[in-house]
Amino acid sequence: MGSAGFTLGQLAAALKTTVDGDVTRVVTGVAALEAAGPEHIAFVADGRYRLAALASRAGAFLAADDVQDLPAPVIRCREPRLMLIELLNLFHPPASFVPGVSAAARVASDARVHPTAAVDALAMVEAGVVIGARVHVHPLAYVGPGAEIGEDSVLHPHVVVRDGVRVGRRVIVHSGAVLGADGFGYTWDGSAHRKIPQMGTVIIEDDVEIGANTTIDRGTLGPTVVRRGVKIDNLVMVAHNVEIGEDTVIAAQTGISGSCRIGRGVVLGGQVGVSDHVTIGDGTQVGGQSAIFEDVGPGERVWGSPARPIIQAKRIAVLETRLPELARRLHALEVKLRRLEDDARRKGGGA
Amino acid sequence: MGSAGFTLGQLAAALKTTVDGDVTRVVTGVAALEAAGPEHIAFVADGRYRLAALASRAGAFLAADDVQDLPAPVIRCREPRLMLIELLNLFHPPASFVPGVSAAARVASDARVHPTAAVDALAMVEAGVVIGARVHVHPLAYVGPGAEIGEDSVLHPHVVVRDGVRVGRRVIVHSGAVLGADGFGYTWDGSAHRKIPQMGTVIIEDDVEIGANTTIDRGTLGPTVVRRGVKIDNLVMVAHNVEIGEDTVIAAQTGISGSCRIGRGVVLGGQVGVSDHVTIGDGTQVGGQSAIFEDVGPGERVWGSPARPIIQAKRIAVLETRLPELARRLHALEVKLRRLEDDARRKGGGA
Amino acid sequence: MGSAGFTLGQLAAALKTTVDGDVTRVVTGVAALEAAGPEHIAFVADGRYRLAALASRAGAFLAADDVQDLPAPVIRCREPRLMLIELLNLFHPPASFVPGVSAAARVASDARVHPTAAVDALAMVEAGVVIGARVHVHPLAYVGPGAEIGEDSVLHPHVVVRDGVRVGRRVIVHSGAVLGADGFGYTWDGSAHRKIPQMGTVIIEDDVEIGANTTIDRGTLGPTVVRRGVKIDNLVMVAHNVEIGEDTVIAAQTGISGSCRIGRGVVLGGQVGVSDHVTIGDGTQVGGQSAIFEDVGPGERVWGSPARPIIQAKRIAVLETRLPELARRLHALEVKLRRLEDDARRKGGGA
Repeated sequence: MGSAGFTLGQLAAALKTTVDGDVTRVVTGVAALEAAGPEHIAFVADGRYRLAALASRAGAFLAADDVQDLPAPVIRCREPRLMLIELLNLFHPPASFVPGVSAAARVASDARVHPTAAVDALAMVEAGVVIGARVHVHPLAYVGPGAEIGEDSVLHPHVVVRDGVRVGRRVIVHSGAVLGADGFGYTWDGSAHRKIPQMGTVIIEDDVEIGANTTIDRGTLGPTVVRRGVKIDNLVMVAHNVEIGEDTVIAAQTGISGSCRIGRGVVLGGQVGVSDHVTIGDGTQVGGQSAIFEDVGPGERVWGSPARPIIQAKRIAVLETRLPELARRLHALEVKLRRLEDDARRKGGGA
Repeated sequence: MGSAGFTLGQLAAALKTTVDGDVTRVVTGVAALEAAGPEHIAFVADGRYRLAALASRAGAFLAADDVQDLPAPVIRCREPRLMLIELLNLFHPPASFVPGVSAAARVASDARVHPTAAVDALAMVEAGVVIGARVHVHPLAYVGPGAEIGEDSVLHPHVVVRDGVRVGRRVIVHSGAVLGADGFGYTWDGSAHRKIPQMGTVIIEDDVEIGANTTIDRGTLGPTVVRRGVKIDNLVMVAHNVEIGEDTVIAAQTGISGSCRIGRGVVLGGQVGVSDHVTIGDGTQVGGQSAIFEDVGPGERVWGSPARPIIQAKRIAVLETRLPELARRLHALEVKLRRLEDDARRKGGGA
Repeated sequence: MGSAGFTLGQLAAALKTTVDGDVTRVVTGVAALEAAGPEHIAFVADGRYRLAALASRAGAFLAADDVQDLPAPVIRCREPRLMLIELLNLFHPPASFVPGVSAAARVASDARVHPTAAVDALAMVEAGVVIGARVHVHPLAYVGPGAEIGEDSVLHPHVVVRDGVRVGRRVIVHSGAVLGADGFGYTWDGSAHRKIPQMGTVIIEDDVEIGANTTIDRGTLGPTVVRRGVKIDNLVMVAHNVEIGEDTVIAAQTGISGSCRIGRGVVLGGQVGVSDHVTIGDGTQVGGQSAIFEDVGPGERVWGSPARPIIQAKRIAVLETRLPELARRLHALEVKLRRLEDDARRKGGGA
């Protein structure tokens, strides 16, 4: 938390916005509504949080223009989530680091490390690696032979970047992520699974973030490609030869099988599975735990295992819940029909 | 295995219980029923394993009072599972270690490492860290700036504890687990996903165990909290701002999305998915591969994707299996009804 | 890519096969059909890829005998996938390494490292370890006390092999995999979960490959066993006391619970979950995202959550899609039947 704090007037000036209330009030940090005390500014995303805000002990709020009658001064903004980011950056400036290669790091003599980059203790940088300006290679990270890390990227502790992988600019790779392990490919030769050498690589474009313990395998012949702006959560599996389009978001524990094409601006929920060679169109949204066995067009919303259009999938889920009732009704119909048939037969016979 | 072994009389004395049979028989280790030889004592959890015990070559058994007529001497006990733990600890005393900081470890000059703790070779302990009594930081583990590790805790090789994370006492963290990576939060600014700084931390209370390659993300503003006695298996994902109640058990590959509240004494099976902002009540049990999209009350038993009360879910699963039959019966009804209608129309027309 | 390249004649001679077309043409690398240029040879797995081959700019092809009329010279073969492996090994000979223990590695004085093996910088080899001929322990890998690594095996960066684990010959373990963490076992003692010591180990037989960030837990009393030739993808969980039969293939993110017996030649798709103590017979195939709660016999093909024989599962999936229609038809029947009953009553009453 910022030790000295800011007045609301200072914050509003920095954020280029206005204050409703006492501009001289000082806050020393940002906190959630329930946890905030008088020294905190708290964030009111929208009107749904108004009751929580009324109950909050926060000394100030950051809120949209349409959230009225709050119990403390308010910094106003039109897009509270974007302004929250700036507010947090005021209180917690991005971590700085001391450039240079630690004496306890291992860096190959022919690796090129930019003088503004840092390679921390117990990190390993292999032969032929190129590390760009202001890159931060944290302790115990590994960068394999011939890999390239673009400027302003961060490899957190215990990241593995295997040989030849190319990481773009402003990429964040979280601890335990593995980029460029062998793809999973074999051919049965009659008596054993023969390994297909995985000679391709991994290309991570700019502005990508990759979660902890996520794995992105190298391609068989060509590259596995993660395009600009993609955000991948923890424990995700991206198999060989996959291509993921720009600005796509992938939640935790999702798995994408080999040679899939995932479009731009796609959202995959958590624990989704995508079969191999599937294409998912731009802008499609896939609900959590869905299984995608076939191509999905652009702009669709699908859910379920197997995945179906979401309205259909929800209707099916409701009808599944009603299956016992439907079965009872079916049985009741059979009984009644039998009675009618018997009656008809009796009357027919009596005729 | 204990090299010299124990007589059954010695074991019974240590376990404060009795022996049925020859107290002078010597056993040198504990083994499973199928694998045991005459030199082993084998464990009979309950009467269901009696046949396996009769076929076993074990030289002795550990069994509950109601398992009778076993083919070798029996150490008796009322709670065989608890006594198995004590038996195993007799044969395999918990691993000891030599206190002290290895010359090949990297420990920041202002980190405080208790003299009874061990920091092994190639481990990294950053600035401001506090490491309690009898803590064991294994090789290649990483403890980030300002983190705290409570007494008697163990960080296995390749554990990552990121900056500011607080780990309680008697906590076991297995290899590859990552505590405190950034939560997964972005806001679309019209042209790109803007990262919401994740300024919170992770708090792990006492007596927690965390499995290999599990990830527990730091909160956005406040902490992600794992309460006393929670047991988490491998490859589990706990997202930012989650709180997990005391003594809850979470099986492998389960994922808990952001801001969930999981109660006390909950059991989540393997590969369960929980949507964000969901509350699960105390003592609830969730079957494997379930998907929880809505709050679940305390004490419930649910299963399925989407999860439903378990009796309902099982009934639905049975009816799904019977769907082909139900569809046939529906069709048969339609045919019969059409025939009845035709008959009625004919008779009506003929009247 | 091979810098100098080979003529097609040279390749055909090395592969013991023939060329359709100009044997003097030179290619410098292997590429996918879409990415290939005139300097590449591209692979045509079978006739389904013929159109892609016609559109390819490749300078040569590797194709089966029955793929005719390709637009460049063709190296012919009966089993293109097997020959692709040999072709790739010609252009990319398996990585070599310099034998010996790096001065920056940590190797216990009583560890036995074969003189033809390599232990790289920042790798850790503990007491009593045995490392066989031509083994490559990459940087930042960890081999725990008493573990054994068989000849020609590879531990990639950041692999963890815990104490006592036995790894066979020609085994490949990818980055972040953890072999031998504690199994997940507790007993409730009335007030807390008591940990059951996990005294067993892990045995990995020859010719196994283990994917990145996969975890294989040690057994409780005996070993967890992965038999010869098993191939395991990334982020897979193999729990304690499991046994996996020879040549079985397990796709990414699958989880196998404690004490399961998986047969030989089994194929488990991605994200499959197997409940504890389940037996799966030899040669059985399990579709992606299936949940196996009960034993499955040998040679079966199952799919779904819960898993059912695949033909039945697909029929059920179709009928689920038709549930809204079935419910409408059921309702229509009820309406018609009520009308018939009313008619019958009226007529009966009118009689």
